[in-house]
Amino acid sequence: MENLSFALDCSGGDFAPLEIVKGGVQATRELRCKVYLVGDEKEIKTVLETLGEFGNPRIEIVHAPEKVGMNESPAVVLKRKQSSLYVAGKLVRDGIAQGLVSAGNTGAVLAAGKFIVGTEEEVERPAIGVALPNPRGRTVLIDVGANVDSKPKHLVQFAVIGHTYAQEILGIKNPRIGLLSIGEEEGKGNELVKETYPLMKQTKLNFRGNAEGRDIYAGTFDVIVCDGFVGNVILKASESLGLAVIQLIKEEIDRSFLARMGAFLLLPALNRFKKKADFTEYGGTPLLGAKKPVIITHGKANAKAIKNAVRVAGEFLMQDFNGKLVENLKTLIPHEVRV
Amino acid sequence: MENLSFALDCSGGDFAPLEIVKGGVQATRELRCKVYLVGDEKEIKTVLETLGEFGNPRIEIVHAPEKVGMNESPAVVLKRKQSSLYVAGKLVRDGIAQGLVSAGNTGAVLAAGKFIVGTEEEVERPAIGVALPNPRGRTVLIDVGANVDSKPKHLVQFAVIGHTYAQEILGIKNPRIGLLSIGEEEGKGNELVKETYPLMKQTKLNFRGNAEGRDIYAGTFDVIVCDGFVGNVILKASESLGLAVIQLIKEEIDRSFLARMGAFLLLPALNRFKKKADFTEYGGTPLLGAKKPVIITHGKANAKAIKNAVRVAGEFLMQDFNGKLVENLKTLIPHEVRV
Repeated sequence: MENLSFALDCSGGDFAPLEIVKGGVQATRELRCKVYLVGDEKEIKTVLETLGEFGNPRIEIVHAPEKVGMNESPAVVLKRKQSSLYVAGKLVRDGIAQGLVSAGNTGAVLAAGKFIVGTEEEVERPAIGVALPNPRGRTVLIDVGANVDSKPKHLVQFAVIGHTYAQEILGIKNPRIGLLSIGEEEGKGNELVKETYPLMKQTKLNFRGNAEGRDIYAGTFDVIVCDGFVGNVILKASESLGLAVIQLIKEEIDRSFLARMGAFLLLPALNRFKKKADFTEYGGTPLLGAKKPVIITHGKANAKAIKNAVRVAGEFLMQDFNGKLVENLKTLIPHEVRV
Repeated sequence: MENLSFALDCSGGDFAPLEIVKGGVQATRELRCKVYLVGDEKEIKTVLETLGEFGNPRIEIVHAPEKVGMNESPAVVLKRKQSSLYVAGKLVRDGIAQGLVSAGNTGAVLAAGKFIVGTEEEVERPAIGVALPNPRGRTVLIDVGANVDSKPKHLVQFAVIGHTYAQEILGIKNPRIGLLSIGEEEGKGNELVKETYPLMKQTKLNFRGNAEGRDIYAGTFDVIVCDGFVGNVILKASESLGLAVIQLIKEEIDRSFLARMGAFLLLPALNRFKKKADFTEYGGTPLLGAKKPVIITHGKANAKAIKNAVRVAGEFLMQDFNGKLVENLKTLIPHEVRV
């Protein structure tokens, strides 16, 4: 990725600026790209000096004295023009950097993506797709929170965005698309789903009908489409369930010596499993449909997660994701179903 | 429960009639209630004879030659008046039995509950509440599929129904109520949530604001209110996630002898955990707001699950759940917010 450069928001996330700067350094070494470290100049300089990386020719510091807090309203970013997120977004909008990575306030990163970086041609509403693990591979759930109260035509666009993501980035040929509902048959579900179903059938997607909640982690579909409210609560409930299960199992294990012994022997297997499910391994969630890659990482992202997020942004560019997306939006959706 | 009697749908579920009949027998022995076994008379008689229970004075067979298939449209039950589910519902409507238990087609059981057993006074729409486990206890998620496209006033009713369930059946004093949304602050979420929030504030419930997906399994709320579409996909996604995690861990374990050893030592702890999460232990999901207890069990319900579902139905009656629900609907919701 020698010709690419990325803007890293160094004031967002639980471990900013240290882990962001470290991740940026790793990206310059491993991916050989350029990074713009955007944030408090002094702080960033101090970290770079500590790491012995001040003067790294692939790193440029861009001063941005303000920041957007984790609990502030997302819209704040659009007014706070000296914030690291705004400045990073502007670098991308102006073509100086080719992608944005932030571990900050998710809503604010979304706003920066939509309104500062901007929305790609043909895309009505950018959407967030996550590639969730299942025993056979991954299923893209889209949208998981960039939009609420979506209209049928938006869901059709999300389907095409998810199709393009699954095919171009995850390497899934002819992805099987499902529409999230309750009940499998056409005509089952809420008003939104009932209106969307016939539109989906008119597209050239590999539409396989309604998916149910149970399909999300079962590998029966490659892309499952839903409104962002629904996708977001599912995603967060899943995280919370995972934590609760680990907690409950831990409590049971603590009650017996043999069980503790067993857990010890199981550790390597559990760690391999953890690696499969670990967000730091695959680095961040893209805002699909923005003009340039915008990658939102977990607030707790460490250096490795940041580096992987940069890698993901680079892959989107190298695969010409946006070019293929625009093409797909034009060719897979018949004219009368377009937004 | 000597004075109580329950109608059991003996033609619904994966293990009907055997496990249903066995569960009914267990209920007569352990709970000392009466059961009406509704279904194919010959089949039921054969099972009872095999069990040496033919002639049990607490058992009465009610012949119903037809059934509603697991994949048939729920509305079918209302027309198929010789089906076990219709006949069982009618026994309850006519006051012959005091509650209904079925492991059959969930949608059809819902329809039987709403339209044959009927809806309780003051209740606009019955709802399904599930008591999901968390490390500290249980959280009621309501509605998980009895209603789609709910209006704000319906969500307020679901909150009162969930409050009554948590307080009277789960024994939680002054339950903390949350409104499922994306984002914690008032004003975050979709149109439905934004309109519901101010109405919730006007009730006398212990309303604690918006809950997020991550709160569902965290124990931060006792009752979380949502539209049935959203609740249903969350519930089914959770089940599917649980299965996928077990599958992935199994695969990792199979790759190493030490890990298999460890898993063996862990077995008792895992079994204790499984018991906590096991639906057969707590038996079925009530349709809250029906005129009499209607308990929907898992399609794979075994005898124990059926017996526990009967126990749950009995508890609703003994606690006078409906009386308290009607009272709460009248007193906790101000007049101007009523449906």
